[in-house]
Amino acid sequence: MAKSRYEYVKQFELDDSALPGTWMVVRIDGRGFHGFTDMHKFEKPNDLRAIHLMNRAALEVVRNIRDIIIAYGQSDEYSFVLPASSTLYSRRISKITSTIVSLFASNYTMHWAEYFPDTKLLVPPCFDARLVCYPTQKTLRDYLSWRQADCHINNLYNTSFWAIVHSGKTEQEAEERLRGTFSKDKNEILFSDFNINYNTLEAVYRKGSVIIRQETEVKSVSQKSGEEVVRLRRLPAVLHDDIISNEFWKEHPELLVSSQEYE
Amino acid sequence: MAKSRYEYVKQFELDDSALPGTWMVVRIDGRGFHGFTDMHKFEKPNDLRAIHLMNRAALEVVRNIRDIIIAYGQSDEYSFVLPASSTLYSRRISKITSTIVSLFASNYTMHWAEYFPDTKLLVPPCFDARLVCYPTQKTLRDYLSWRQADCHINNLYNTSFWAIVHSGKTEQEAEERLRGTFSKDKNEILFSDFNINYNTLEAVYRKGSVIIRQETEVKSVSQKSGEEVVRLRRLPAVLHDDIISNEFWKEHPELLVSSQEYE
Amino acid sequence: MAKSRYEYVKQFELDDSALPGTWMVVRIDGRGFHGFTDMHKFEKPNDLRAIHLMNRAALEVVRNIRDIIIAYGQSDEYSFVLPASSTLYSRRISKITSTIVSLFASNYTMHWAEYFPDTKLLVPPCFDARLVCYPTQKTLRDYLSWRQADCHINNLYNTSFWAIVHSGKTEQEAEERLRGTFSKDKNEILFSDFNINYNTLEAVYRKGSVIIRQETEVKSVSQKSGEEVVRLRRLPAVLHDDIISNEFWKEHPELLVSSQEYE
Amino acid sequence: MAKSRYEYVKQFELDDSALPGTWMVVRIDGRGFHGFTDMHKFEKPNDLRAIHLMNRAALEVVRNIRDIIIAYGQSDEYSFVLPASSTLYSRRISKITSTIVSLFASNYTMHWAEYFPDTKLLVPPCFDARLVCYPTQKTLRDYLSWRQADCHINNLYNTSFWAIVHSGKTEQEAEERLRGTFSKDKNEILFSDFNINYNTLEAVYRKGSVIIRQETEVKSVSQKSGEEVVRLRRLPAVLHDDIISNEFWKEHPELLVSSQEYE
Repeated sequence: MAKSRYEYVKQFELDDSALPGTWMVVRIDGRGFHGFTDMHKFEKPNDLRAIHLMNRAALEVVRNIRDIIIAYGQSDEYSFVLPASSTLYSRRISKITSTIVSLFASNYTMHWAEYFPDTKLLVPPCFDARLVCYPTQKTLRDYLSWRQADCHINNLYNTSFWAIVHSGKTEQEAEERLRGTFSKDKNEILFSDFNINYNTLEAVYRKGSVIIRQETEVKSVSQKSGEEVVRLRRLPAVLHDDIISNEFWKEHPELLVSSQEYE
Repeated sequence: MAKSRYEYVKQFELDDSALPGTWMVVRIDGRGFHGFTDMHKFEKPNDLRAIHLMNRAALEVVRNIRDIIIAYGQSDEYSFVLPASSTLYSRRISKITSTIVSLFASNYTMHWAEYFPDTKLLVPPCFDARLVCYPTQKTLRDYLSWRQADCHINNLYNTSFWAIVHSGKTEQEAEERLRGTFSKDKNEILFSDFNINYNTLEAVYRKGSVIIRQETEVKSVSQKSGEEVVRLRRLPAVLHDDIISNEFWKEHPELLVSSQEYE
Repeated sequence: MAKSRYEYVKQFELDDSALPGTWMVVRIDGRGFHGFTDMHKFEKPNDLRAIHLMNRAALEVVRNIRDIIIAYGQSDEYSFVLPASSTLYSRRISKITSTIVSLFASNYTMHWAEYFPDTKLLVPPCFDARLVCYPTQKTLRDYLSWRQADCHINNLYNTSFWAIVHSGKTEQEAEERLRGTFSKDKNEILFSDFNINYNTLEAVYRKGSVIIRQETEVKSVSQKSGEEVVRLRRLPAVLHDDIISNEFWKEHPELLVSSQEYE
Repeated sequence: MAKSRYEYVKQFELDDSALPGTWMVVRIDGRGFHGFTDMHKFEKPNDLRAIHLMNRAALEVVRNIRDIIIAYGQSDEYSFVLPASSTLYSRRISKITSTIVSLFASNYTMHWAEYFPDTKLLVPPCFDARLVCYPTQKTLRDYLSWRQADCHINNLYNTSFWAIVHSGKTEQEAEERLRGTFSKDKNEILFSDFNINYNTLEAVYRKGSVIIRQETEVKSVSQKSGEEVVRLRRLPAVLHDDIISNEFWKEHPELLVSSQEYE
């Protein structure tokens, strides 16, 4: 194809490769989601439709980008993990980050009506994203633990806060009631005042959502013989497991094996 | 809010600020759009519905991000320009890039049905994005000229190619016919064989689309007096002007004034 | 040459190119020079031997690295400017920075005895360095003005401080005397108490040192005819001019012409 | 201290921190050392004086920068390793790299006369430097193995090459003789033609030089009692060990322990 004399401006595009041999985490975050949730009347403290929509968008991203080996989401954020050995897009930070965040945003928009059949999408959702490199399995696991600990801290607060509000107090009163309290205090308030045992709440709220690829039976009908055929395929699935403890990682040893060549 | 012992992983997020005093251009590009256009049966060489949808998504981005002073789009790409003086998100590259690309993707998805009322959106669109810094007015203008020259080169080729194909040839035959030809040859083919004067084709195809903020009369009815009120506001509008020549920049001196403090 | 199986580690070397079309400034700074000047009994407020040694080291750097078009030094720092059009070492930041700083350090060490014939060099001098990009002529000039204004501010302070100390006061008393004073106050102290008209002090102290390449007559004797030949060559020379005002730049228009292709 | 209106240019200094939790390796390399060794008539294939001078300069760098835990040198290059846990200069790449390379250059210059008492230093030595991050113990060890394997490959070649040249052949003839040969061929040439058993050559040539801090008995005389006092201190020392094999690392477990918090 012909080239113009302006072609030289291409050289201003600098290389932005991520350090090889490190885990790459792309975390997307809702922008202005406080207003977004108000506008669309999300239920508080948690709106299960919204959680399922976030998980659906993330699931489509994981289906699309094969290198992602685990994703973790809570509230209006989702983290996608690419292994240390990944060479996706030559590890170019902008390319990886923008592809993931735009796929997430378009899926969120496209599938909105399935999860919110009675609520019209009034404004397009917006997410920002960043890519962070973690050099070792330990630092990667600590990253994921950080997000799940954050989920716990926020959800315990929000559950307490909205229990107080739903009981007839103002938001300001709820805030004052919780100021300076520790986890055990909030557990106590929930139990004594609202008869809620926090630890028995559904895991989806307390633990957030984890997506990994799991061996799954896929049934299809043979076009030739008409018989049903069952095959095993690794398909992404949403779990609500504790990913801080060692157990999860022992059950899924394949998650960390990918970076063994570097450690 | 309480903090966990995993908090230390936050320090792995490195600063990625763009050099101050430089123009920032975020260019988004359709990913896998060859398949996307086939799947949704886009008209060739240009599908006006698709162009209008691209422009609508870009317009919404420009409405949302006030710092953008000019945007230019053609084919499945769009460039958004932030002035040298912009301090949007402290000039953090990931934050700016991801916000723009996710807004674009969700707007494209959300407004699809308005522009393709008879075509169901089958897969979510995906765009990648990168941010490039240009140090001076001249290099910025050369960047925009590069993209518009590219539009011209591609559109002349595509117009010729599809004219040949629509006349009954195979795509391979069209390709062979055009191999090694220069602009004047393609103009000649279009004129002699298909009676098309390329230069009289609509500017939207030949020049692509430019978005700038223009003084616009906005009418509203005063709630108090019931009278119609006309105010002037600067609102983004889509043009199909030549942005390579000096004329455009002389007509819109405010576009380059913003970086005067540095030049 | 044979390759080992460890060769793969080379891929961890990431590209660190400076943005094209920007002025590159490498500023070196003495590390631990407070102790260094005490140890070698530098005269206060200024030691002319030390200034000449700094200038000599810088001159050798400029002789060696042809792309440097201007350098500016004061106190224990020196800035070397590469034009926006420079492609030295493909504009790799580490390569440029390390080459300049190591040349400076070895020249400073090697020429020490010429400038300090009676003082043994007790410890090797150490300098750190950084490369900063400036996108336009204006920002580059403002950078150089910043350093020369800094020279003025520090030198006026130091001249006043050491005048007070040399008159018999303690360093603490001198510090207290100067606390909160403005330029005009220090000028007044110098004039009233010590009969020093600051503005008539030698420019080398007040303005620092500038190195540019100047047309110079170079004489040599022809080996053939035995006659003396005079040729004009552009050789680096040390000046003590004011580089903040426009005059200097009008006298040396070639300094800024190099980046014209970008502005 | 007063500030000038040019102060704003400081914001163009961007952050260049190395990724936390990664090993930082600064490798310095002689610039134009081919000419430098010719000019100063270095002995070929190896000049022991030059090796000792390189080691001395490196030793002084290690003494000065406490965070360096191991250094490895061969030919005209030296690598300095900072542990994953190091926070030296907030891990700023330019600061670390320039400090090490300038210290190396000034030490090399300052100590020249001790190692080359009969050879005047004609030009100042120059070194470039780069900092590379390695995410894990394994990649760090592979880096060091890469450099030591390189030392072996080059030294075997050079030893063969100069043996042939010293036997009366031209450099071109030596080059041709060695073209396409493997290690075993060169070993064979050395043994058959020159009666040299390569593997019994001194380790300093075959293995290069390693600097680590070792427990050392330091004797001093008590000023009080006049008695000799012996204390154990960890002081840097030069070894010529094999650092590719596991043995070395088992003998010095403290070298890798520093990054345990991340792995």
